[in-house]
Amino acid sequence: MINNRIENLKQEVFEANIELVNQGLVIYTWGNVSAIDRESGLVIIKPSGVDYDVMKASDMVVIDLEGTIIEGKYKPSSDTPTHLAMYKEYDTIGSVVHTHSEWATSWAQARRAIPVYGTTHSDYFYGDILCTRELSKEEVNKDYELNTGLVMIQTLKENNKNPLELPGLIISNHGPFSWGETSQKAVHNAKVLDEIAKMAYRTEMLNPNIQPVNKYLLDKHYLRKHGASAYYGQVK
Amino acid sequence: MINNRIENLKQEVFEANIELVNQGLVIYTWGNVSAIDRESGLVIIKPSGVDYDVMKASDMVVIDLEGTIIEGKYKPSSDTPTHLAMYKEYDTIGSVVHTHSEWATSWAQARRAIPVYGTTHSDYFYGDILCTRELSKEEVNKDYELNTGLVMIQTLKENNKNPLELPGLIISNHGPFSWGETSQKAVHNAKVLDEIAKMAYRTEMLNPNIQPVNKYLLDKHYLRKHGASAYYGQVK
Amino acid sequence: MINNRIENLKQEVFEANIELVNQGLVIYTWGNVSAIDRESGLVIIKPSGVDYDVMKASDMVVIDLEGTIIEGKYKPSSDTPTHLAMYKEYDTIGSVVHTHSEWATSWAQARRAIPVYGTTHSDYFYGDILCTRELSKEEVNKDYELNTGLVMIQTLKENNKNPLELPGLIISNHGPFSWGETSQKAVHNAKVLDEIAKMAYRTEMLNPNIQPVNKYLLDKHYLRKHGASAYYGQVK
Amino acid sequence: MINNRIENLKQEVFEANIELVNQGLVIYTWGNVSAIDRESGLVIIKPSGVDYDVMKASDMVVIDLEGTIIEGKYKPSSDTPTHLAMYKEYDTIGSVVHTHSEWATSWAQARRAIPVYGTTHSDYFYGDILCTRELSKEEVNKDYELNTGLVMIQTLKENNKNPLELPGLIISNHGPFSWGETSQKAVHNAKVLDEIAKMAYRTEMLNPNIQPVNKYLLDKHYLRKHGASAYYGQVK
Repeated sequence: MINNRIENLKQEVFEANIELVNQGLVIYTWGNVSAIDRESGLVIIKPSGVDYDVMKASDMVVIDLEGTIIEGKYKPSSDTPTHLAMYKEYDTIGSVVHTHSEWATSWAQARRAIPVYGTTHSDYFYGDILCTRELSKEEVNKDYELNTGLVMIQTLKENNKNPLELPGLIISNHGPFSWGETSQKAVHNAKVLDEIAKMAYRTEMLNPNIQPVNKYLLDKHYLRKHGASAYYGQVK
Repeated sequence: MINNRIENLKQEVFEANIELVNQGLVIYTWGNVSAIDRESGLVIIKPSGVDYDVMKASDMVVIDLEGTIIEGKYKPSSDTPTHLAMYKEYDTIGSVVHTHSEWATSWAQARRAIPVYGTTHSDYFYGDILCTRELSKEEVNKDYELNTGLVMIQTLKENNKNPLELPGLIISNHGPFSWGETSQKAVHNAKVLDEIAKMAYRTEMLNPNIQPVNKYLLDKHYLRKHGASAYYGQVK
Repeated sequence: MINNRIENLKQEVFEANIELVNQGLVIYTWGNVSAIDRESGLVIIKPSGVDYDVMKASDMVVIDLEGTIIEGKYKPSSDTPTHLAMYKEYDTIGSVVHTHSEWATSWAQARRAIPVYGTTHSDYFYGDILCTRELSKEEVNKDYELNTGLVMIQTLKENNKNPLELPGLIISNHGPFSWGETSQKAVHNAKVLDEIAKMAYRTEMLNPNIQPVNKYLLDKHYLRKHGASAYYGQVK
Repeated sequence: MINNRIENLKQEVFEANIELVNQGLVIYTWGNVSAIDRESGLVIIKPSGVDYDVMKASDMVVIDLEGTIIEGKYKPSSDTPTHLAMYKEYDTIGSVVHTHSEWATSWAQARRAIPVYGTTHSDYFYGDILCTRELSKEEVNKDYELNTGLVMIQTLKENNKNPLELPGLIISNHGPFSWGETSQKAVHNAKVLDEIAKMAYRTEMLNPNIQPVNKYLLDKHYLRKHGASAYYGQVK
């Protein structure tokens, strides 16, 4: 029973990793997707440094929340401790995605949060797409990947953000992370984040004095798609 | 008889929605096309939040000009009241298109009209591609999608524009709408609008002091393709 | 005998027009290629406003140097007088290409020549890619397309340029023209011109104080590929 | 025995040249790959000016380290002396790649080194991607391609760089060179270099005051993938 769920999740995580390539968010080994089976506490994650064009669903690595390998012939992604920190802190998250997608990474390298410049952003992210502070030398030298997860959590908490309402952020100097209830949604959010990053860049070039949208427009767009009063899409 | 026309229009609207994806103007559910059968007053529109890769012609929703569903198992696009406002105001319009295409949306987020910087623009749009004013809190909170249509109409009227001579504009903070006599033309105009937006962006980067083209050049290009003196293309 | 040559040239011009689309230089009907058979003085050119996806080799229009249609069921491109002006002035030119390719058109709209910023430019264009002056109201209102050709010739002559050494330029407010001994070379030059325009744009963004390359570097690159001392490529 | 190795290397160099096109780094004949068989001292290189779409593995040219053609019906790439200079100076290099890839070439034309703005850069290049000084008139007029190689070596040496730790640089006014232990790695580095160049460009546009990353972050990322303490990827 667990095995069936885990096998399905391995297939799902594999496909989500491939979708990152198909969506133009990842080249070579520059990204990874994980997902968690909350009942068993097992996490499925991409193996480290394996090329996408030879990777198979059976190559996905099964670990527990402490990072111990439960099944799989490969080492898990070197970013594993970052993923696990998010799963431990937020039990609403079912999948975590990391990429070096070109536009979001440019904002990361500029060490800037992405302001809410329009309704595309408002449809998905309920506020600025935050940018973490830079890690200290100590945080980088010891437990770097864990500290990357901790600084994401710190950033969300200091800004009083529910991670499902802000399903992604930017790691300073590095690139974006996104998440969601499922790996499909987490990858979708990774794509949306990069599109928003691209349009925000061009918005600033076209109007260097541009200000974020009014709170009431953000509310309207976010809440017509999410939460109790949503009226976008079909009734589930 | 009506049924035949409506079935054909459903197929046409379906294909026009798919063409938005093929032209790179829409990802996920970020766009919609509608068309009107003027004789019956029935409007065909994309269903809300249905993925393009599973959508079929039979999923198109048939509504009347008040938005009442006449046929279809899905809810119509949440932007339906915007489309209907345009059909009611302008009886020359046969199809309306909305996208979040990347370049036009960047101008929308910058809250700027696109000046006429060249002949590509002049071949299709007889003047600046206008940008609507921002909606007030009241306009957003109540009847938002209707008010989006009304502010388009207000913008066209205040600038004395015939919608067929300016077959698209930009909604402040949001993205472009375009239209035409047929859905093929409306989608064509959506593509052209985004190309113009892209080249206008780069024009300003290359020459921050650039001014719009002379009125006589705009006239020449627009009128050699449109109206009684047109000589571009083949005799119909 | 003439007929054979003309039929071959129709096929060649057709394929060159399609190649513009394949190279990403043209969408819809935004471009045209012509070629001349010097012995008979006949010119083959794309018909006006015919979509690329339905166009056939047999749709190409055969005209003489005065623009009289010799063969073909369609009207020739509305830019025909521009092409003919170039063939009449320069008997070394075998083919002319016009596009609204996105980067070159942005420079055209910025009304700027493209300075020689590197060796890619120097490999093909022996000097700045010139930008024509703006046409006067009179020149636009009467014989606009002919005057577009004349201002190209004026620009080349005033700058003492041999058209085969500068196989393309930019029409102010409009877009690029390119040419060559054959339609393959003219299309090749259209593609190169757009790539150069793209990289020159980014060069200026990265270094607003950048200056053109030294004359000795331009000479080296242009002359190692062209003329008596060329040593690039294979011996013909 | 030598013949077998050389035949394999010809196939490998051919495929690496094609991969440049597939990765979008080269159009037309704007690039070349070579590789060396260290035991025999023979170098395989792309022929000069041969189109990629007709090129075959058997067209690759075999030369010795002095540039003498050992096998092959074509002239080798005109950039051959640049490649040979690198092989002679650095015996750890197994393959050299040259392209005019669009982003790296824009930095080359701007005559600027690419600062280390993030972890993508740090994962591959252990420091700024250097830009060579401009060549003098004498260096261009005589032995230009050799001098291009020599100025690369000068640049690496003056900055105390091990070429395997900085597997690429930018030739002022020209474009990038990259290298690696194998042709696959050298092409991989060419792609990475262009991606880094693209994101660095956008980083500066988003934040004109941006500074390079801290040395401890560069160390962390470079050293977790390279050298004795690497822990990224799978154990070989």
